[in-house]
Amino acid sequence: MAEPAYLTIAIRKQEERQSRIPREWLLPSHSKPAPNRRNILEIPRTCGLLSDEEVKLTEEYDAVALLEQLSSRAITSVDVARAFCKTNCLTEIFFEDALARAKELDLHIEKTGRPIGPLHGLPISLKDSFRVKGYDASIGLTPLCFQPASRNSALVDLLLAAGAVLYCKTNIPQTLMALDSHNHVFGRTLNPANLQLTAGGSSGGEGALLAMRGSVLGVGTDVGGSIRIPAMCNGLLGIKPSHGRVPYSGQTHPAAEGAAKMGVESSAGPMGRSVRDCEMFLRVVGDMEPWLWDPECVAQNWTQQSPLVRSLGQAGSEVLRIGIVRTDGVTMPLPPVQTLLDELAATLSSAAAFEIVEMDITPLFSQCQSLANGLFSIDGSNHILDLLDSTGEPLSPWLQTRLKRRPKMSLDKVQELHARRTELQAKFLRIWDEDGGYWKGCPGPEQDRKGQKKRLDAFICPVAPHPVPPVDGYNTVSYTSSFVLLDYPAGTLPVRPLRVGDLKGELTEAKPSSRWDKANRDLWTKVDRSVYLGSPLCVQVVCPRLMERKLCDVMAALENVFKKLSKNEMVAKL
Amino acid sequence: MAEPAYLTIAIRKQEERQSRIPREWLLPSHSKPAPNRRNILEIPRTCGLLSDEEVKLTEEYDAVALLEQLSSRAITSVDVARAFCKTNCLTEIFFEDALARAKELDLHIEKTGRPIGPLHGLPISLKDSFRVKGYDASIGLTPLCFQPASRNSALVDLLLAAGAVLYCKTNIPQTLMALDSHNHVFGRTLNPANLQLTAGGSSGGEGALLAMRGSVLGVGTDVGGSIRIPAMCNGLLGIKPSHGRVPYSGQTHPAAEGAAKMGVESSAGPMGRSVRDCEMFLRVVGDMEPWLWDPECVAQNWTQQSPLVRSLGQAGSEVLRIGIVRTDGVTMPLPPVQTLLDELAATLSSAAAFEIVEMDITPLFSQCQSLANGLFSIDGSNHILDLLDSTGEPLSPWLQTRLKRRPKMSLDKVQELHARRTELQAKFLRIWDEDGGYWKGCPGPEQDRKGQKKRLDAFICPVAPHPVPPVDGYNTVSYTSSFVLLDYPAGTLPVRPLRVGDLKGELTEAKPSSRWDKANRDLWTKVDRSVYLGSPLCVQVVCPRLMERKLCDVMAALENVFKKLSKNEMVAKL
Repeated sequence: MAEPAYLTIAIRKQEERQSRIPREWLLPSHSKPAPNRRNILEIPRTCGLLSDEEVKLTEEYDAVALLEQLSSRAITSVDVARAFCKTNCLTEIFFEDALARAKELDLHIEKTGRPIGPLHGLPISLKDSFRVKGYDASIGLTPLCFQPASRNSALVDLLLAAGAVLYCKTNIPQTLMALDSHNHVFGRTLNPANLQLTAGGSSGGEGALLAMRGSVLGVGTDVGGSIRIPAMCNGLLGIKPSHGRVPYSGQTHPAAEGAAKMGVESSAGPMGRSVRDCEMFLRVVGDMEPWLWDPECVAQNWTQQSPLVRSLGQAGSEVLRIGIVRTDGVTMPLPPVQTLLDELAATLSSAAAFEIVEMDITPLFSQCQSLANGLFSIDGSNHILDLLDSTGEPLSPWLQTRLKRRPKMSLDKVQELHARRTELQAKFLRIWDEDGGYWKGCPGPEQDRKGQKKRLDAFICPVAPHPVPPVDGYNTVSYTSSFVLLDYPAGTLPVRPLRVGDLKGELTEAKPSSRWDKANRDLWTKVDRSVYLGSPLCVQVVCPRLMERKLCDVMAALENVFKKLSKNEMVAKL
Repeated sequence: MAEPAYLTIAIRKQEERQSRIPREWLLPSHSKPAPNRRNILEIPRTCGLLSDEEVKLTEEYDAVALLEQLSSRAITSVDVARAFCKTNCLTEIFFEDALARAKELDLHIEKTGRPIGPLHGLPISLKDSFRVKGYDASIGLTPLCFQPASRNSALVDLLLAAGAVLYCKTNIPQTLMALDSHNHVFGRTLNPANLQLTAGGSSGGEGALLAMRGSVLGVGTDVGGSIRIPAMCNGLLGIKPSHGRVPYSGQTHPAAEGAAKMGVESSAGPMGRSVRDCEMFLRVVGDMEPWLWDPECVAQNWTQQSPLVRSLGQAGSEVLRIGIVRTDGVTMPLPPVQTLLDELAATLSSAAAFEIVEMDITPLFSQCQSLANGLFSIDGSNHILDLLDSTGEPLSPWLQTRLKRRPKMSLDKVQELHARRTELQAKFLRIWDEDGGYWKGCPGPEQDRKGQKKRLDAFICPVAPHPVPPVDGYNTVSYTSSFVLLDYPAGTLPVRPLRVGDLKGELTEAKPSSRWDKANRDLWTKVDRSVYLGSPLCVQVVCPRLMERKLCDVMAALENVFKKLSKNEMVAKL
């Protein structure tokens, strides 16, 4: 029997990728991890491929610090580009282009004394769905291989104009609708801190690469949690903006053109190792006038995004008023996630700069998941399954039980889902107000909106109802997809590693409340919990729509406080 | 045979409306216009129902001036409310509520010395599609009569919180998808300046009421031109913002809930007699934080909307760089419209504050109409025709030949239209740049977007390819609907009346280029042109998406210049 088309394509594609890594940068056999090793974060540092200087460049700087060094000419673009090119978990590799570009930038700064733009010389890695002229954006689908892009995605153009050095694209799951980055073209991306746990998805390659310090700043996309989930799984920062903040146009996606307009729209956003790096990314994009590159971007630069509502504390001093949302009302978070929220509430309550509000938004939050799932399913998977059929490519194991061909939804049904969404978005406006009925202890009735009222700056909730799960162990994405449905900016913030003490927590409810809850409990009761030890516990921070700048402010303030909770156990170096 | 249900409802509804006008405010029979009169603008002034002081209040102030008088307590809210209540062309009338509200406001300012909000005491009229608690929002459809709203539209809540006095709602066409405001419930709204010409639609009641000085500031909605067209027909200012700038949620519309998300989204916007009134409305709405009232509004107050790209002239001084778009490439404007653009180009070219750029965007513009019409038609008129069938209500005459029941569009077809729209929006980004290929004399190739490049601040184009047409004479709306498709803010600006000399212009092309062009030519060749004499000639001003503040700046600068062109013939007092 002849080899299926998909396999032939996948093999050719892997050979192409291999050929783009300089021979002298291939991992020597003595450095390959022993089969029983779980944590391979040390390999880049210890394999010998990177010089001491290169290890320093990849390990000791965040993006903001690298930019300072580059613009003051303490280091060169070529040095930085070479250091970051020497790692892996990639789909498309354009190291040669990157080094050529870095050389140009070095020449420019040498001649003019000035950086070419606000991202001068900064290497940025991109999720595979971005189009870079001359390279595939196959998103791990054999039918899309060997079809190099004829133009750049809007954000790629913008980043290049700002001076960035693009050097690679990173792995994703087949269909982009899975939470573990496996596909038949590039294989599975593993979690470098613990090979038994998932690296997350769909921007899983970004997550792994950043964790291994193969990248200092990456760009993912998120429609169900695809930035925030791999950020959580790899102990990173990741921000999903509202749609229209960062250019998203010109992406490759596994659906028909125009389909996103019928469903829920994705956002592109930064992933990195500090809030200030994510903020720097959003600031630079805002100040590059993204609406000139993507017609869906809002005409509002970074200055014009200055936080609008800032709470005043008792004494008239500025405080951040932060809500705590403990559950979506469908899937109860497992004990370590509950414990984490308890700790955060206690820590923040005792800090003068914060005012903490316990919330119960379950009457609204519990409606989000089925609505988001409905809007994800309008095509009945027909487009993607037709595409896979064209090369005989099978579904990834995790998807096989979840992705089924169904009739396309009728226009009436889609309309009805949108009507429900709009209604829910309007109701959610009230969770931010003290008299909206969602603040515990403030069950204020619907009132006139006049006069000074307390409002939240942001709220904190779980990224997921469980710690970083084992490979293919992800289930519900309600805690992340809901804020795409609502179009709220939301970010993942690592707090501390999961410790031995966390393993003792037991479920409080006797029975699961839903099938989602059941699957979640299994992650605690049917898994050897010790697998979670040392994995990063994170929270999600959520702001009202299009308030990315405020989100960065709040996340930076929280990052500062949380450093104490991690007791110097550096999450990124677990 | 029993009377059809729709007639019974319409009669009851008209009785209800009549009952809401105080008997002593009804027009005395000697003041009713003689059958041969065309211009009835004088009636409010001469009928004797308004005192000299009331005539002064309705005739001599714009909204900004009224607000100054109100906040300095030179006049009272009750005086103003009473003066504006004494006029007509209304659907729902709530004069009693308005006077009670005005009394409250007067008490407040008397007690505190301060206005209650930025719109303290200002009467504002609303298109019938806005919901005001306790009153119908029937939009002229018998099946929707006698179903009083249980809650206010978001903008109604916002305007009340800002201190406005709401006193009436105004007439619209059946289905809202016609350009002449006729329906079987409230009848036809006539153009008070010339009963033979249309008052426009769908915010036609607003247009007529403002022209008659029965309102000083009104709110319309626009998805195909429904603010800009009645503004043109009545010689008024009207601005259609981008979607998300002014709260639109909670409108009554003649489609299924959620349908707007599948097609093209409407905007609400101001209609008035000066640019500064429209600007004041947008400023107040922006500073009331509309995103707290409507989840689709952008988090950007008025200050944060400060114009972003301002051109620098040769000598480094600020100039406004204005494009001139003469045709959509489908329907050639009739001679008086062409003449108007010639005059404007000449006038602006000789003004130091402007730089004029002749443009040809027909390769893109000509694609908009069919795309917009496609997106208007996804339901195949089934929802509205089912609704009308429920009371046996027939279609208005103009709609009978245009609105037909068709199969609903498939989801695939709708997706395809959205894909084309997105692609077109991206291409349109280039019309603003000197090197985009759309500026005459600057056919610059696609280039790198780096470096300083000339960009347009705005462009001017016709509102329609004809002057104000006779009743039911409107055809194409390409010149207005295209900027809804593109989501560009656009406003109508009256320039001067059509004069005897304009009647001599002849068509230059021997034959029509399309069926739209043919219908348009008929308005010049098959109509006694003298009907157009004295009607207002207007232009449309268009800015990039979400740049309403810049649009106001440009319109104010142009209004200033155009005053000279009108040679003191006040368009509003034709």
